[in-house]
Amino acid sequence: MSLSLTILGCHSATPRANAFPTSQYLEINNRHFLIDCGEGTQRQMRKYKVGFTKINHIFISHLHGDHFYGLVGLLSTYGILGREKELHIYGPKGIKKVTLLQLKISESHAKYPMIFHELTSKESELIFEDDKVSVRTIPLKHRVYTNGYLFTEKEKPLKLHIDNINNYDEIDRADFNNIKAGKDVVLSTGEIIPNAELTLPPKKALSFAFCSDTVYKPNIIPIIKNADLLYHEATFLADKQELAKKTKHSTSKEAAQIAKDANVGQLVVGHYSGRYKNIDLFKEEAQEIFENSELAIPGKVFTIQ
Amino acid sequence: MSLSLTILGCHSATPRANAFPTSQYLEINNRHFLIDCGEGTQRQMRKYKVGFTKINHIFISHLHGDHFYGLVGLLSTYGILGREKELHIYGPKGIKKVTLLQLKISESHAKYPMIFHELTSKESELIFEDDKVSVRTIPLKHRVYTNGYLFTEKEKPLKLHIDNINNYDEIDRADFNNIKAGKDVVLSTGEIIPNAELTLPPKKALSFAFCSDTVYKPNIIPIIKNADLLYHEATFLADKQELAKKTKHSTSKEAAQIAKDANVGQLVVGHYSGRYKNIDLFKEEAQEIFENSELAIPGKVFTIQ
Repeated sequence: MSLSLTILGCHSATPRANAFPTSQYLEINNRHFLIDCGEGTQRQMRKYKVGFTKINHIFISHLHGDHFYGLVGLLSTYGILGREKELHIYGPKGIKKVTLLQLKISESHAKYPMIFHELTSKESELIFEDDKVSVRTIPLKHRVYTNGYLFTEKEKPLKLHIDNINNYDEIDRADFNNIKAGKDVVLSTGEIIPNAELTLPPKKALSFAFCSDTVYKPNIIPIIKNADLLYHEATFLADKQELAKKTKHSTSKEAAQIAKDANVGQLVVGHYSGRYKNIDLFKEEAQEIFENSELAIPGKVFTIQ
Repeated sequence: MSLSLTILGCHSATPRANAFPTSQYLEINNRHFLIDCGEGTQRQMRKYKVGFTKINHIFISHLHGDHFYGLVGLLSTYGILGREKELHIYGPKGIKKVTLLQLKISESHAKYPMIFHELTSKESELIFEDDKVSVRTIPLKHRVYTNGYLFTEKEKPLKLHIDNINNYDEIDRADFNNIKAGKDVVLSTGEIIPNAELTLPPKKALSFAFCSDTVYKPNIIPIIKNADLLYHEATFLADKQELAKKTKHSTSKEAAQIAKDANVGQLVVGHYSGRYKNIDLFKEEAQEIFENSELAIPGKVFTIQ
């Protein structure tokens, strides 16, 4: 029961010897998601020991090459590996056609069902939900149609207050699910033991917000409010504020302002422009506004317990 | 005036942490070619300091993902880098549609002319020629339509026999181009100095044959005869002869037999299946048939003077 984010790639624009385009692997409440898939993502997955078969859902923010050119190779590799399980791909309208054409022309005969969920809405919408996790879009503003994604654990059950439970010999394991679900217990004497006596508050349901690529867009704040972990792009430093606005990217300062105003637990910035040789400056700039700011670095894992 | 081949990637099927799909960079007679472009090729080019801007021609053997999934990213990067020069792309029919669709959907507004030469012939054909180099296809036999490529330097001019030329005060630099072109010199006395006295044989015109992917196909031998350098795929060792035949790949032994029968100068094998942990076995197997056999390894450079 935790949230763990592995950075696979975190640089903007073009792959370089030690710069990898955007991709992240998220484990949340025992669900495993891939977010964005720039060229070389599958290699980064191998390098950082990300289990290919655990992933059943891939979320693509937008169709700029540095966020999806690695998708077709990964889908093809799943075919070569003999995958049979369904794979769900979420992304902007158009992703299905271009991906299937590439797979067709390369005669990549994947035998597993590939289910595309093409997004067009400009409002935040619930796009995935099961008993463990839900995923909503975070409409962003970039040069092309772009969504961030908010991954949220489902509300967790109440925790058992074992010390108190032990005061009642009659209550045993068979009752635990009902107690965790909030029910009182009726003893054989007719006495009612209120649930509040037998339980502790549940663990907090964790959430992670992924926001890339986007210009500074404070109206996402209500959607990502109180997220435990926020990844927000920071392509530029504040010295390139005008360029950020023009290219519809954010500065590290702006990312930190969003983190602060949304009252998130921790901020991770990335998507650094290749012009900056010293990425530590991104952290320094963010920390002036929001103390708990960190840098995305390939292979780095952020864990929230 | 030499031939230099840099291996960028040389493994089959899927990229792994230390396995890179097929790509090679060829410098021949001051021309610069990229051959195949699996996922991650542009990163390998950065890693091994291959000059992006020198390349004006890209040759794709076939449309399996491990030979072309890196193409769109590279073309997109050229756009980002502000390329204006024409770029010629040679490959099987279909390569244009799939590439342009990807570039269009990712709104990659490349400003340079991208000229696709789609190949359909099953016979060897001349597809490129200038004053320095010519390129012919080598029809291969694989599961999809596939061509190898033969790169050949143009016949070189005669070399000046300076010692002999120095016997004639009257012959000077203004005559050198005519002498190198094979002409006799007529002195002011009317005496004719035969060209053979003033020249030495030209340097050998070098050639490189790229053959991947293919089943053992001895009828390519007349096309690649006497090539100075041959790259021939060797996906399997001879222990998997049947599997090689079934999947239309070659064994290292078969690659070496082709090298021997074609009387090439040197053989380089690659495209190793991931099942083999010790690729030295490919070299050992090839050398039993053809002594001058080497392994393709990322970053390795083969130079013929």
